[in-house]
Amino acid sequence: MKSYKQLKSERKRVAVVGTGQTKFEARTPQKTYYELALEAAMKAMNDAGVTPENIESVVYGIYNDLFERQIMPDTYVHDYLGMYGKAGIRITTGGATGGYAFRSGYSEVASGLSDVTMVIGVEKAQDCYDWAQGKTTPEVIKSIAYSADMTWEFPLGTSAASSYAILASAHMDKYGTTEEEAAMVSVKNHGNAMNNPFAQSPMKITVDDVLQSRMISYPFKMLDCSLYTEGAYALILMSEEKTREMEVNNPVWVMGIGSSNDKSFTGSRTVNDRMGRYGDIADLRNHYESAAQAYRMSGIQDPRKVIDLAELHDAFSFTEIQAYEAMGFCERGKGGKFIRDGVPMMDGDLPVSPSGGLLGAGHAVGATGVMQIGEVVNQLRNNAGKRQVEIRNGIGLAHSIGGPGSSYCSVSVLGVD
Amino acid sequence: MKSYKQLKSERKRVAVVGTGQTKFEARTPQKTYYELALEAAMKAMNDAGVTPENIESVVYGIYNDLFERQIMPDTYVHDYLGMYGKAGIRITTGGATGGYAFRSGYSEVASGLSDVTMVIGVEKAQDCYDWAQGKTTPEVIKSIAYSADMTWEFPLGTSAASSYAILASAHMDKYGTTEEEAAMVSVKNHGNAMNNPFAQSPMKITVDDVLQSRMISYPFKMLDCSLYTEGAYALILMSEEKTREMEVNNPVWVMGIGSSNDKSFTGSRTVNDRMGRYGDIADLRNHYESAAQAYRMSGIQDPRKVIDLAELHDAFSFTEIQAYEAMGFCERGKGGKFIRDGVPMMDGDLPVSPSGGLLGAGHAVGATGVMQIGEVVNQLRNNAGKRQVEIRNGIGLAHSIGGPGSSYCSVSVLGVD
Repeated sequence: MKSYKQLKSERKRVAVVGTGQTKFEARTPQKTYYELALEAAMKAMNDAGVTPENIESVVYGIYNDLFERQIMPDTYVHDYLGMYGKAGIRITTGGATGGYAFRSGYSEVASGLSDVTMVIGVEKAQDCYDWAQGKTTPEVIKSIAYSADMTWEFPLGTSAASSYAILASAHMDKYGTTEEEAAMVSVKNHGNAMNNPFAQSPMKITVDDVLQSRMISYPFKMLDCSLYTEGAYALILMSEEKTREMEVNNPVWVMGIGSSNDKSFTGSRTVNDRMGRYGDIADLRNHYESAAQAYRMSGIQDPRKVIDLAELHDAFSFTEIQAYEAMGFCERGKGGKFIRDGVPMMDGDLPVSPSGGLLGAGHAVGATGVMQIGEVVNQLRNNAGKRQVEIRNGIGLAHSIGGPGSSYCSVSVLGVD
Repeated sequence: MKSYKQLKSERKRVAVVGTGQTKFEARTPQKTYYELALEAAMKAMNDAGVTPENIESVVYGIYNDLFERQIMPDTYVHDYLGMYGKAGIRITTGGATGGYAFRSGYSEVASGLSDVTMVIGVEKAQDCYDWAQGKTTPEVIKSIAYSADMTWEFPLGTSAASSYAILASAHMDKYGTTEEEAAMVSVKNHGNAMNNPFAQSPMKITVDDVLQSRMISYPFKMLDCSLYTEGAYALILMSEEKTREMEVNNPVWVMGIGSSNDKSFTGSRTVNDRMGRYGDIADLRNHYESAAQAYRMSGIQDPRKVIDLAELHDAFSFTEIQAYEAMGFCERGKGGKFIRDGVPMMDGDLPVSPSGGLLGAGHAVGATGVMQIGEVVNQLRNNAGKRQVEIRNGIGLAHSIGGPGSSYCSVSVLGVD
């Protein structure tokens, strides 16, 4: 792996130079998925000061073909954006689709194949609409549950919530993490979202509100869970050479990317191996590995000393606590204490998910990981409005996960000079 | 775009150093898709002389989630291959999935993110099996047809065959291409497959056999169409630095990659734009564009003078004729004459699809584009057994397409020193 230091000395870095998004909403019946993507793309291009002619390739993060009953939805987005002739690459890796699409966008530019790449995440589930009742049907949850192993897990009733609930229970059992601590994550993130005009679920709530909300899958109550969301988020990535040529004002550099895939629950179907997996399940070993890769590339020894803010994947409140530990923000098993001590609060030492995260801003699957990176970019540019955190070292982190048993994890570290 | 010349002078090229595949078959009821992938992966690693520990990331080319009713099938392959901890990236771009997965594998290595990457294409459709009758059901065709625009095209009966038949008809109308010329492609490719032990449809047939086979969608008869196939193909990609370190004997270098996406038929839904698209439809403009990009990167002025062999995407016989022109092997509109003159035959000046192509070797969607590149690699290494063509300049080309209206096209040029 080439280090950031080496890339910097060779002037061969990759920058994020523009962000754009739609509002994240429960339903967007008035817009198609390609209209959502266009809105985000135009904002990102305007922000970057580039025109469609500058874009040489597009990486699409679109998760679920069943949402729209449309294989190859990226074809229709590419067309609608007027991107004829340019390469269009479609990534799909569950809830981590956005994070992996960003990795692919990075490698498109760093490889020299493109000087300017757009990464767009978009999600919508029109095929799951009940138009008469004006709501999204449970079909959307079923389409997501198809990500569990269809032979061994799905028949047992595995869903997104129940699989992450098993991980959370293991963490509670091993380290004594409490439902109250998880509820504090929910309170924080729904509250942070109140300063995000694009957020789906801004809410001023209390720990008691979370604890008393409807049980979904123990230990997750309704307010521990992110909601289904529709929306789009776009980023413009550019080679260092091109940022000089185009005189880009405030490039945010990609310092490191680490991605690590684990097995799902049923794993490789051998008992020994499965036992090993369950023995580790509280610790999300591939999250530790992804962070280690990203820090190695970034040259970061102690993340607590240099990271100004992070966006962590909180599809479920407990997962954010597990991520504090895996990202090295606190010791193993001390994630609960980390939030009790107030460290990840907006006024804490290491604010986590100022956007509101998935709980507050929304979880538009393919767009989510892109949004998290966009939030870090805007924070590092001191361009995050009312939710701006203090930038001291100029380094931020985004954490994108997905799959049953959180089998996908991609960590991106960004920084300004 | 960085040129091959520059990459070569900087010793920063990417090589293919190993290939491996399963037999391509109509049905593989005795194996899961992850078992197919494992077989191909082990062969590729053995061929390359690497162990699983050397692999730093895996790019998965898997096309259709509906085939197995399994979202994220790559998770289960990654696990079964024992690739825990490494990045796993899933690409899906229709029939061109293999070609785009190769592009992503290239950029993984060229970007410096990985020194050794495995690209695996795999396809299987167990959810579409009729176990009682021992055959694959029409559900598999329906799953493919979902790639047409579900709002504007699918309701009109657009399928893979009928959409490519429209492109073929336009070519016949504009240039006078005949059904006999297309039949010659089918005869050639089914014949070439007789020397490929992994091929699904080796057949000694005549032009009359093709012309008299059952009509599918005018002008396509049964023998003009590739069949549904199951199987896997794996490639090992390596940085130039690593090939020196590991003392790899016969690296095949990636000289150029060009990828260009077009609109589907209905296009951007404006009449003017759509009319423009139909005006061009005989010419597959994004195939011309992809080839131009790939030749620009490779530094190739006249492909006819330097290319020893090509694997062209012949899901339908007529499409190979259109590709002769788009790849610059002959003048626009002269594709029919090109095969009448015998140029793409095994003993011709520029043999096309010695593997048997999709018609003869099979079309295991996500694996197909990977197989085509693997065939070029083995030919350039003089390792193609009975179907070896003469290698003079040491340069070959692979052409991977997909989507309704062939909206995806990726062209890879490979060479040996």
